[in-house]
Amino acid sequence: MAQQAVANRPRVVIVGAGFGGLEAARALAHAAADVVVVDAKNHHTFQPLLYQVATAALSPAAIAWPIRHLLKTQANAQVLMSQVLGVDAAAHQLHTEGGPIGYDQLVIAAGAGHSYFGHDGWEAFAPGLKTLEDALDIRRRILSAFERAELAGKGKAPTELTTFVVVGGGPTGVELAGAIAEIARDALKSEFRHIEPAASRIVLVEAGPRILPTFPERLAEDAARRLARYGVEVLTGAKVVGIDAAGVTLEDGRIAAATVLWAAGVRAAPLVGDLPGEHDRAGRARVAADLSLPGHPEIFVIGDGAAPASPEGKPIPGIAPAAKQMGAYVGQVIARRLSGRPPLPPFHYRHAGDLATIGRGAAVVKVGPLQLTGLAGWLFWGFIHVYFLIGLRARFFVALDWLWSYVTYHRGARLITGA
Amino acid sequence: MAQQAVANRPRVVIVGAGFGGLEAARALAHAAADVVVVDAKNHHTFQPLLYQVATAALSPAAIAWPIRHLLKTQANAQVLMSQVLGVDAAAHQLHTEGGPIGYDQLVIAAGAGHSYFGHDGWEAFAPGLKTLEDALDIRRRILSAFERAELAGKGKAPTELTTFVVVGGGPTGVELAGAIAEIARDALKSEFRHIEPAASRIVLVEAGPRILPTFPERLAEDAARRLARYGVEVLTGAKVVGIDAAGVTLEDGRIAAATVLWAAGVRAAPLVGDLPGEHDRAGRARVAADLSLPGHPEIFVIGDGAAPASPEGKPIPGIAPAAKQMGAYVGQVIARRLSGRPPLPPFHYRHAGDLATIGRGAAVVKVGPLQLTGLAGWLFWGFIHVYFLIGLRARFFVALDWLWSYVTYHRGARLITGA
Repeated sequence: MAQQAVANRPRVVIVGAGFGGLEAARALAHAAADVVVVDAKNHHTFQPLLYQVATAALSPAAIAWPIRHLLKTQANAQVLMSQVLGVDAAAHQLHTEGGPIGYDQLVIAAGAGHSYFGHDGWEAFAPGLKTLEDALDIRRRILSAFERAELAGKGKAPTELTTFVVVGGGPTGVELAGAIAEIARDALKSEFRHIEPAASRIVLVEAGPRILPTFPERLAEDAARRLARYGVEVLTGAKVVGIDAAGVTLEDGRIAAATVLWAAGVRAAPLVGDLPGEHDRAGRARVAADLSLPGHPEIFVIGDGAAPASPEGKPIPGIAPAAKQMGAYVGQVIARRLSGRPPLPPFHYRHAGDLATIGRGAAVVKVGPLQLTGLAGWLFWGFIHVYFLIGLRARFFVALDWLWSYVTYHRGARLITGA
Repeated sequence: MAQQAVANRPRVVIVGAGFGGLEAARALAHAAADVVVVDAKNHHTFQPLLYQVATAALSPAAIAWPIRHLLKTQANAQVLMSQVLGVDAAAHQLHTEGGPIGYDQLVIAAGAGHSYFGHDGWEAFAPGLKTLEDALDIRRRILSAFERAELAGKGKAPTELTTFVVVGGGPTGVELAGAIAEIARDALKSEFRHIEPAASRIVLVEAGPRILPTFPERLAEDAARRLARYGVEVLTGAKVVGIDAAGVTLEDGRIAAATVLWAAGVRAAPLVGDLPGEHDRAGRARVAADLSLPGHPEIFVIGDGAAPASPEGKPIPGIAPAAKQMGAYVGQVIARRLSGRPPLPPFHYRHAGDLATIGRGAAVVKVGPLQLTGLAGWLFWGFIHVYFLIGLRARFFVALDWLWSYVTYHRGARLITGA
């Protein structure tokens, strides 16, 4: 490996190029340090729009960019594509598939995977949505279900093949259910001869008393009403006790469904779980006020991997703005430390708001005192997402793709590829 | 299965929705028949631009469309997504993964795969380019090679990791080699810290005396000169005798290369090889003057699967215009037969021309007496390809993508996903 420390410049290694890792790297642009970003993938993914890839509205390349392209102009940054296997905190070294990488300062921004609450066997039947590969897998499952139903020629009534269950009533679950309803109702219209896609059954299952629990009740009610109007059955207080190839078992019933998607729980990356120190139930590391690992001031954990120091602390939501704030903060903490400046005050999370889109022309938005629903919410949501998409090109093309889909009801990326 | 004959309408089954199959289906739009298009995939692929997906210039969705979307407005057509396993010519029945499908008239338009001339073991090390999955596999290999080289930190000189060998000097091989040179020279510029992508070694290996053997010699020479200027080594008269994970063995030497691509030989789909009757060496069925199978007037073979009736007959090139002409012809033959009109004269192939692009602003074109090279050839090539892309949307977006790439040297689809 060529990744030996150069001269006397300290090396800051950042694991993961999601929202948090990228911000941390950028905050170190002017630091006298070698910044090494290590990621198992070559691309940064704009996760808030993953559900649009999963539902065939956008192509993967519309919401993902090569990490090294994003950091191309940052002279002190390099990008290495390698899976990180573990942290040797005593030796200040990462173990990676491509060999060991030493560090002086380490930022773990490894994101989260899915949690099946102890039922890991459910994963094969109900994939979650965290990566482009997940999105393509889900797209394949949704589109293939309609193809199989047409092939079976089962007629116009929904069967298990045209029944879709989304488990989890948070924003991702709401967005997936709404988008599947759109596909069934609009995008596939007039394209099948034996089945009626618009008659598909789409069920959103939530264990709690209502969907979108982090939103004001009024907005959650609006979302539930609109979902119902779009043909989505919203089941609240419905606890999933089993998932298999043929459907979902609830405490008080059973839904036969060929396609089940999981949007109910997340768990910090295994790398975080293996770090020394305490963890919460979701595998997140309990971090100090400056987001460093207690006893290891040179190791920081940010984004979906970070939990408050004490179980009483208010958890920070697992959303992009939170990860970005943590990344920028930790980058500054390290930059100040390396240049001998006094440390920053403790990290303080500023919650900007909550957004969830329901479908064509409808979203719920809460930003400060502002609450929006329907078309106003959707326009706000679209504007914010296009704005934050990195790079002019993506903004331009995503906007065009959406405009086109909105006008034509067409979905451009309806491809079933891969295994 | 619901695919039982409806009333007394004859059923025409078309296997494969490539250029030939789609044209056949369209030619039957006004026939009093049920047209059933069966394909293992849900999408039609615009194969001439596959190399652009393989080299990260276009997204899969820019060159592929759901088959049922393309046939949506054709009321007598239905699309079934199912892998065809075999033809029972005696029983007039197809065996498919989704069950049997009976036919009155059958059109086999199943395309071609790769031929390794008896060395099937080479396929794992040197994938060919026929499907979107192939293109994504090749994209992954090309981009991953640069990532692995950067991780190994091997320095500025080309090593086996930054050596790319393309076997086969036809249009596909020329296009792949030219596009890889572009990626190395332009798209990845300034993005790596340990390697110099522009110093990569790209070798185009051709067993014959010159590249582009079907083109006039002057155009082939122009192409070879330009490839050399772009940094591609063109080796002619170079016979490959071995391919393994570490490179390519030629009769008189060895090239160490992590990435080897195959563009040297094609073979008709296995389904065609299993048909009754005679076949040529590439597994193509020898067809009668009306493209039907001798002894089976109800079975037609078109496109890459069809060979002339006698070994002395002039072979029809395996290109999109040929497949489309055959598809349109067979569709008309069947339509006339079903309505009791007199049969058409024998199929006659009209060769429109040959095109191959070499890279940014350079292509060779022969259309009738017209021969173009350089920018003029490239503009002609770009115009023709955008024109023939099916659907306004694709034309619009492909044109934009190209314009953008041309202006910025950027490649939008540089994602490594999948296994």
